[in-house]
Amino acid sequence: MKELVERIQKDGRVLGEGVLKVDSFVTHQVDPVLMEQMGQRFAEVFKDQGITKVVTIEASGIAPALFAAKELQVPMIFARKAKSLTMDEELLTASVYSFTKQVTSTISISRKFLSSEDKVLIIDDFLANGQAAKGLIELCRQAGAEVEGIGIVIEKSFQDGRQLLEEMGLKVVSLARIASLTNGQVEFLEEDA
Amino acid sequence: MKELVERIQKDGRVLGEGVLKVDSFVTHQVDPVLMEQMGQRFAEVFKDQGITKVVTIEASGIAPALFAAKELQVPMIFARKAKSLTMDEELLTASVYSFTKQVTSTISISRKFLSSEDKVLIIDDFLANGQAAKGLIELCRQAGAEVEGIGIVIEKSFQDGRQLLEEMGLKVVSLARIASLTNGQVEFLEEDA
Repeated sequence: MKELVERIQKDGRVLGEGVLKVDSFVTHQVDPVLMEQMGQRFAEVFKDQGITKVVTIEASGIAPALFAAKELQVPMIFARKAKSLTMDEELLTASVYSFTKQVTSTISISRKFLSSEDKVLIIDDFLANGQAAKGLIELCRQAGAEVEGIGIVIEKSFQDGRQLLEEMGLKVVSLARIASLTNGQVEFLEEDA
Repeated sequence: MKELVERIQKDGRVLGEGVLKVDSFVTHQVDPVLMEQMGQRFAEVFKDQGITKVVTIEASGIAPALFAAKELQVPMIFARKAKSLTMDEELLTASVYSFTKQVTSTISISRKFLSSEDKVLIIDDFLANGQAAKGLIELCRQAGAEVEGIGIVIEKSFQDGRQLLEEMGLKVVSLARIASLTNGQVEFLEEDA
């Protein structure tokens, strides 16, 4: 998406190899106008998939997921993260390993909000190793829900998340695709939408 | 707000004295249509205060804050919660005590996103003891920013958060005000907007 790529060029900051900071408009301070445009783009791409729920993970996935859900006229669900979780039959849970933090956390969604009737669009702000998305897919599958696609704000295409998800047979649509972050420079691939 | 009060009557669940669960449309699964209406209502109430930033706290404050920010055409910032934080000069930090969880956590906002030029609208999903709002106010004041008002989705009027904030000289606007939750029943006061 042109507006997003331009905004990353203007306000994104490269902090060493592999780290792109977009905390002034995505991950901490949020630009609602850009978020709405991104939500509209996701909705446009997935509008014929019969989506019934948009699923994301707290906290920075919420804004793009909310606007996508609004456009698709369906509810949005955000999975909760917790270091540990007591066993609870009412929860769908999955483990997510973070390569950057080297920590495994548990993510969860209340069982009552997903069922085998649901067709899910997963939205997240970043796709790197694909571990968070994989956790969300697992929650959906536990509920018998079908994952119709994955919408990503910023994809680090030099990591293997996209490949992992595509090998699961899933359609991945990224609004910005980063080819590399070497020498403090952001190099882009052509985005999907 | 009539739509919110009716939705609480329909889908809110009282879990014992003092606990109102609204996880099917506010705190876990989110209704984007209702959220947008609430954001519009907050914006309408505070539109003449010269608001430059909407500030909330992750995770369930993000949705109403985002729509309020969109309507007011300003950025939204969500404070991060952490159990402990390493000292970092770039962060504004405050401690928030949770009476329900009996845990003190640290909330933070990057210093660069708030300044003495800012007029802030604080938005949160719940107001009970007012400790989260108080923490957000402290972050704003550390930055020299002025807090112009506080917009709350659901106020537990039988707890003392509103009084605490009003004694600080702040305008509090709640879209639903709960008088009591006794015997599994939700009793409302007249809402502010």
